Amino acid sequence: MRKGELTRERIVAQAAPIFNQQGFAGSSMQDVMAATGLEKGGLYRHFRSKEELAVESFRFALAKAEKMRASGVEPSLGAVEHLHSLVKHFVETPSGVPGGCPLMNTAIDNDDGNPVLRALAKRGFSDWKSRISRVVERGIRSGEIVPETEPRRIANVIIATLEGALMISRLEGTKAALQDARTALDSLLEGIRA
Amino acid sequence: MRKGELTRERIVAQAAPIFNQQGFAGSSMQDVMAATGLEKGGLYRHFRSKEELAVESFRFALAKAEKMRASGVEPSLGAVEHLHSLVKHFVETPSGVPGGCPLMNTAIDNDDGNPVLRALAKRGFSDWKSRISRVVERGIRSGEIVPETEPRRIANVIIATLEGALMISRLEGTKAALQDARTALDSLLEGIRA
Repeated sequence: MRKGELTRERIVAQAAPIFNQQGFAGSSMQDVMAATGLEKGGLYRHFRSKEELAVESFRFALAKAEKMRASGVEPSLGAVEHLHSLVKHFVETPSGVPGGCPLMNTAIDNDDGNPVLRALAKRGFSDWKSRISRVVERGIRSGEIVPETEPRRIANVIIATLEGALMISRLEGTKAALQDARTALDSLLEGIRA
Repeated sequence: MRKGELTRERIVAQAAPIFNQQGFAGSSMQDVMAATGLEKGGLYRHFRSKEELAVESFRFALAKAEKMRASGVEPSLGAVEHLHSLVKHFVETPSGVPGGCPLMNTAIDNDDGNPVLRALAKRGFSDWKSRISRVVERGIRSGEIVPETEPRRIANVIIATLEGALMISRLEGTKAALQDARTALDSLLEGIRA
């Protein structure tokens, strides 16, 4: 990897917590200069605009969160166990970049804001939903999950409950809401077991 | 009401959608000047700082959202029906101020941001949780709800699921996630019926 690429990667890694904590409008190139120790010219040599840097920072944070949350989920598990395991990992594992879930932060920050970041968040949720839906579909095919189950509904409810609980937990500074979410989702998942 | 108070109220009503949509860092006194048609001096005669105006705007938006969502919920209903009704109203009724739920927006915007707004959001969630918990406790006392039910857990799961689903629905521009949340919560509530 060339030196320029290494510098670019380092900037993204240091900018990601800033954008994840402060949001797009609340983060400035000055904040990134302070965090990286780079001058304005050095920063703009690698990124044409704050938007370009915010997009790369979001991609970096999302990839890290997805990796952290998927780690240890065994693909060889049965479908219901696989879903329990996804819930458990979300509840127990931080997102990997300070500031909470980059998907939720970017969604709330930009639902009336930056359209590029909004589209990336929308795609992130859509991908996450597809991954969960596919596990439910596999469970229906294998006879583990009752055939009337709607995969999209299960995916929506798992994601909504986990993200909402993460918001409450971060605000309260305790894990109670996340643990309550896990109990409710574990019970939902036992309810679709064939 | 004096003319000064009327002007102050008008400013808050016009600033509330700006702060709710753009967040604290993303909203400027210039934006509020443009929306109200007031000069800088006129605005600062009523509010000492952007923070003071943001706090009043949040209070206004939250009061409006709570009123909208509680309207039509009959206090004479049985406890389980009361909870179903709260869920139904959240799913069917917009928050009253453009930009989605002011509680969730302020929580996400300020969990690493403005401490005054963060404290107000925390209190707003705590009040909401107490209101739901009291309905569950009433249901346990009256024998409508199974006595092992933990009121705080039910409150956390209802709020987390609704708020998470609202975020997904706003991002997707469809009501699907909110409707899926309602189905899941209705089933949760039937599960605690004695």
